Amino acid sequence: MSLLVIGSVAFDAIETPFGETGKIVGGAASYISLATSMLHNNVGLVAVVGEDFDMDFVKNLNDRGVDTTGLQIKSGEKSFFWHGKYHMDMNSRDTITTELNVLGDFDPIVPTNWKNPEFVMLGNLSPDVQLKTLERIDTRPKMVVLDTMNFWMDVALDTLKEVLKKIDVLTINDEEARQLSGEYSLVKAARVIREMGPKYLIIKKGEHGALLFGEEEEIFFCPALPLKEVFDPTGAGDTFAGGFIGYLAKVGKTDFESMKQAVIYGSAMASFCVEKFGTEKIAEISEADLNNRLEKFSNMMKVQS
Amino acid sequence: MSLLVIGSVAFDAIETPFGETGKIVGGAASYISLATSMLHNNVGLVAVVGEDFDMDFVKNLNDRGVDTTGLQIKSGEKSFFWHGKYHMDMNSRDTITTELNVLGDFDPIVPTNWKNPEFVMLGNLSPDVQLKTLERIDTRPKMVVLDTMNFWMDVALDTLKEVLKKIDVLTINDEEARQLSGEYSLVKAARVIREMGPKYLIIKKGEHGALLFGEEEEIFFCPALPLKEVFDPTGAGDTFAGGFIGYLAKVGKTDFESMKQAVIYGSAMASFCVEKFGTEKIAEISEADLNNRLEKFSNMMKVQS
Repeated sequence: MSLLVIGSVAFDAIETPFGETGKIVGGAASYISLATSMLHNNVGLVAVVGEDFDMDFVKNLNDRGVDTTGLQIKSGEKSFFWHGKYHMDMNSRDTITTELNVLGDFDPIVPTNWKNPEFVMLGNLSPDVQLKTLERIDTRPKMVVLDTMNFWMDVALDTLKEVLKKIDVLTINDEEARQLSGEYSLVKAARVIREMGPKYLIIKKGEHGALLFGEEEEIFFCPALPLKEVFDPTGAGDTFAGGFIGYLAKVGKTDFESMKQAVIYGSAMASFCVEKFGTEKIAEISEADLNNRLEKFSNMMKVQS
Repeated sequence: MSLLVIGSVAFDAIETPFGETGKIVGGAASYISLATSMLHNNVGLVAVVGEDFDMDFVKNLNDRGVDTTGLQIKSGEKSFFWHGKYHMDMNSRDTITTELNVLGDFDPIVPTNWKNPEFVMLGNLSPDVQLKTLERIDTRPKMVVLDTMNFWMDVALDTLKEVLKKIDVLTINDEEARQLSGEYSLVKAARVIREMGPKYLIIKKGEHGALLFGEEEEIFFCPALPLKEVFDPTGAGDTFAGGFIGYLAKVGKTDFESMKQAVIYGSAMASFCVEKFGTEKIAEISEADLNNRLEKFSNMMKVQS
C-alpha cells in the first residue's frame, strides 16, 4: 500500500571512536526511505534540500522505487547540516554544529498523487511541519507513525501534543518516554502517552531492544541483536522506523500481530545501520542479508512450546 | 534431581526511595533457596549464620523442602550484615555498612548425603569458598552454575579465574562481563569469558532482560517484564539464578533449549522479587502466580510464525 514519508534529508559529519566522516548524506527521511524501500516500492518522499545536495543519493532512491516528486530542491540555498561526535560508549554524543539552512522555513508540499496515502511516516522533524503535512492529506490514512526526539519536547511541546492526537503510533526512546510522560516506569509512561493520542507506543532502547505497547495488557518485546561492533549509531532509530512502517505498508495490515513482526523488521534493519558510517550499510544490504538477519532474530527469541 | 546451593544467608537493611527496612533476612543463598524451592524439593543448602539469625526463616526453608543440614549456626557469633541505600533510579546503590561477621572465615561443610549433587549453584560469595565447595564434592555434577560480582573481580580475580575453569554456567551483569573480559561489546565479552571455562554465559541486564550465550551462534534473549514499580532490586539476580537452576534441576536437563526455558523461569521469579522489600514477595507467591507471570512472558515474546 502507498506510504508517504516525511523528514529531514540532509548532510551529517560524524565522529566516533572508530573514525570520522566528511560531509555524508544523513537525515531521518534518508534512512527511513532507504530502509522502507528494501521492503516496499510504493513510497513517496516529502522533504527539502539545498542545491548543494548529493543528487546521486536522490537517483539511488529513485532506482529503489522511491518517488521523490515531493523533494524540494532550493536553488541558492544549503541543505541542513549536523556535525556530531560520539563518546566512547556510543550511547551519548555532543553536537558540534547544527545549520538549519533550508529546514528553517520548510513548507512541506504534498504532491497531488500523494494526498491519499494509506500509510504515513512522520520522521523526526519540527512538530509544526509534521502537523502541516497531516493537514495537507485528504483522507485519514490507515496508519500514521510519528518519530520525534527530546529536542522537540523542550522547544515545541504544545505543537507536539497537538500532533500526537492525530497519530496511531509514536516511536521514541526510553528517556524521551520518561520526559514526555513524567513517569519513570515505562509501563506508567506508556499509559500516560497513550492517553495523549497514539494507540500504540514503541519505546526504542537501542542496544537493549524495543518495546511495543498496545492495549492495557498488550506488550511485545524485541531484543536488539548483540553485535561485535557498533560502528556508528546515527540513523538507527530512523532505520528502525523505516523497517517498521515499510513492513506494514508491504503487508497492508495494522493489527497488533503484524506490528510485532514490523518491530522485528525494524530491529533487523537497525542492526545493519550501525555497522558502518551513515547510510552506507543500509544502502548496500541485499534481501538475502536481511532474511539471514531476520533468522538470527528468530533464533534469539524462539522457545519451543 | 538433587541441587546443592551455597551462598550467603544474612541480614540486610535496605533503603530505597520508597522506604526503608530494619534488619531483614537477605543473602544470595536465601533468595536462591526460596526461588528454587518454588520449583523443586530436592535442595540442600550450605551456608553459615550467627546465633542472632532468624530461625523462623530457616524453618520456612525446611517447610519448603530445603535441607538445611549444611547450614552452620555459629554460637556467640553474628550473621553477615549489609546495609545499603539505593539512588532514585534504583540502578545504583551505596553501601553504608558491611559487617562480615561469620562470613569472614566461612569454611563450607558439605554434608555426607550432599557430596554427589547433580546440580550445584555457587551463589555470590568469595571465590575461595566457591572453590572449596567444589573440591568437597565427590563426583562432577551434571551442571555447576556460578554467580559472582565486580567486588570479587577487584579483590580475588586469580581465584575467581580458577573457579571459572570448573563451572558450566556463569551469571553476571553487563558491566561485570565488560570488566572480566576487557571487551565492551557483549558478543566479544562472551567469547573471551567462555574461553575462561564456562561453556555458557548469562548476562543479566536488570530491567533490560537477560542474554544467554552458548556455542558461537547460540544466543537467546529473554526480556524483563516491564513493571509499574520496582520497589527493591535487592536479590533480583540471586532470585534469577535460583529460578534458572531450579527449573533445570526439576526437569533434569542441561541442553540449550532447556536453558532457554530456565532463563524465562529465572526472569519471571526475579520480576516478583523486586515488587516488595527483600525476600517478602518471593516467599509469598503461589504456583498460580508464577504460572500467570510465565504466561505474561510468553505473550511478550511470542510471534506467530
